Amino acid sequence: MGGAAGPALLGRFVELAGAAAARIVVIATASESPEATGTAYRERFEDLGAGVVRALPLARRADANAPETAAVLREATGVFFTGGDQERIIAVLGGTAVDTLLHALVGEGRVVLGGTSAGAAMMSATMITGGDRPGVAADSVRTGPGLEFLPCVLIDQHFAERGRLNRLLSAVARYPHELGVGIDEDTAILTGGDSFEVLGNGAVTVVDAGAATDIRVPPSGPIVLAGARIHVLPAGCTFHLTGRRPVTGPPSPERERAA
Amino acid sequence: MGGAAGPALLGRFVELAGAAAARIVVIATASESPEATGTAYRERFEDLGAGVVRALPLARRADANAPETAAVLREATGVFFTGGDQERIIAVLGGTAVDTLLHALVGEGRVVLGGTSAGAAMMSATMITGGDRPGVAADSVRTGPGLEFLPCVLIDQHFAERGRLNRLLSAVARYPHELGVGIDEDTAILTGGDSFEVLGNGAVTVVDAGAATDIRVPPSGPIVLAGARIHVLPAGCTFHLTGRRPVTGPPSPERERAA
Repeated sequence: MGGAAGPALLGRFVELAGAAAARIVVIATASESPEATGTAYRERFEDLGAGVVRALPLARRADANAPETAAVLREATGVFFTGGDQERIIAVLGGTAVDTLLHALVGEGRVVLGGTSAGAAMMSATMITGGDRPGVAADSVRTGPGLEFLPCVLIDQHFAERGRLNRLLSAVARYPHELGVGIDEDTAILTGGDSFEVLGNGAVTVVDAGAATDIRVPPSGPIVLAGARIHVLPAGCTFHLTGRRPVTGPPSPERERAA
Repeated sequence: MGGAAGPALLGRFVELAGAAAARIVVIATASESPEATGTAYRERFEDLGAGVVRALPLARRADANAPETAAVLREATGVFFTGGDQERIIAVLGGTAVDTLLHALVGEGRVVLGGTSAGAAMMSATMITGGDRPGVAADSVRTGPGLEFLPCVLIDQHFAERGRLNRLLSAVARYPHELGVGIDEDTAILTGGDSFEVLGNGAVTVVDAGAATDIRVPPSGPIVLAGARIHVLPAGCTFHLTGRRPVTGPPSPERERAA
């Protein structure tokens, strides 16, 4: 979820986690006010019909390696990462027992993993950590390793709202094997394999530098990026990740071209 | 020029207009303070070595139809349109003797036509007149007719600085026959035929919806735009307009990919 997720998206997460039978764990480690943020999400998920919701405070790496923490996660049907600073998630959770366990639980299909804003950004293998300068340039974006739940994509969030295409183009020009996936606010991708579906009120912008005919990235100054592809995909569209192509579905009346 | 043009770009215009032999006419009709803007550009062009520079006040359509105005333009080797509100250029000049005469002079190669910001926007046949909402949607951009000096393109300006890719994508999704050309500040395209060259410190972003595999533009709400192409082209790159393809030139040492 690209930030500012509304009840439809959060409700979908609750539903996927089992609705009244759901046992959801909220991890607000990214937040500057983790206690308040954790409580707020607990209440929202409860209001949306989740059976049991628990905010799990993971402030230090010791918390993320504690046996009690693993026991809580093993009982969960859904784990949700809130927004904040994605680098805090890496600093506290990277390489800990929680990190390893979550990968195992997701891999076995025993847990639905969700996240918004920083909690979405951290899911890719290469994570955007910052950069808000105008222009497409190597120094317009900073990246680092994410927690690697989603291979081969680079997620950016608050995408249209913060005008972040420059930094996503800068990132894929440097790393053209990664698909740039820019998620608007109150918008999400739902994935369980080699494709994702777009949900929510905004759009997902996919930038694919794989087909580019020329890429030149000087250490500073403008980048050359010729022949990249771009897809703007609102709710209902599906994107195949390894095929690098969208499936936009048959035309529907409300989607007919405006006169 | 995409706004905020520095001495290198303005100097190139002076040079193309004949340098010491140049007779440049500045039209500041777009500006809210046309007298001050006209004087400022006159002084800048003079400082850059232009032979004769004159700011031509065209505040009303009567001015643009006056025989004295035509006489001044017939002597010019360069005509420069300043920034401001592109719709004011259309309202005052559209269909007047100045409009007709400038097309004739440009067509005969007797005058170099330049413009920055609004003065660049008005050169295309379809002109972006506004729209700064986030998201790619039909109502994220407003367009109207420009003065049609450049066919088949849709120019946007202050492009990276104001994060305008959303509105350029919105425009080409509606009008996929037009190439979207987003020009950064202190950056320009130089064209005299079926291609343009990029000049200046920023980049030109070309968005091409011609190759899109699916486009759906509802009257409101998000657009589907699948398979569009995007090119980010800094100085030295050339773009072929009817071929819809960039020529980025041979690699040069300073353009090698950063380590």
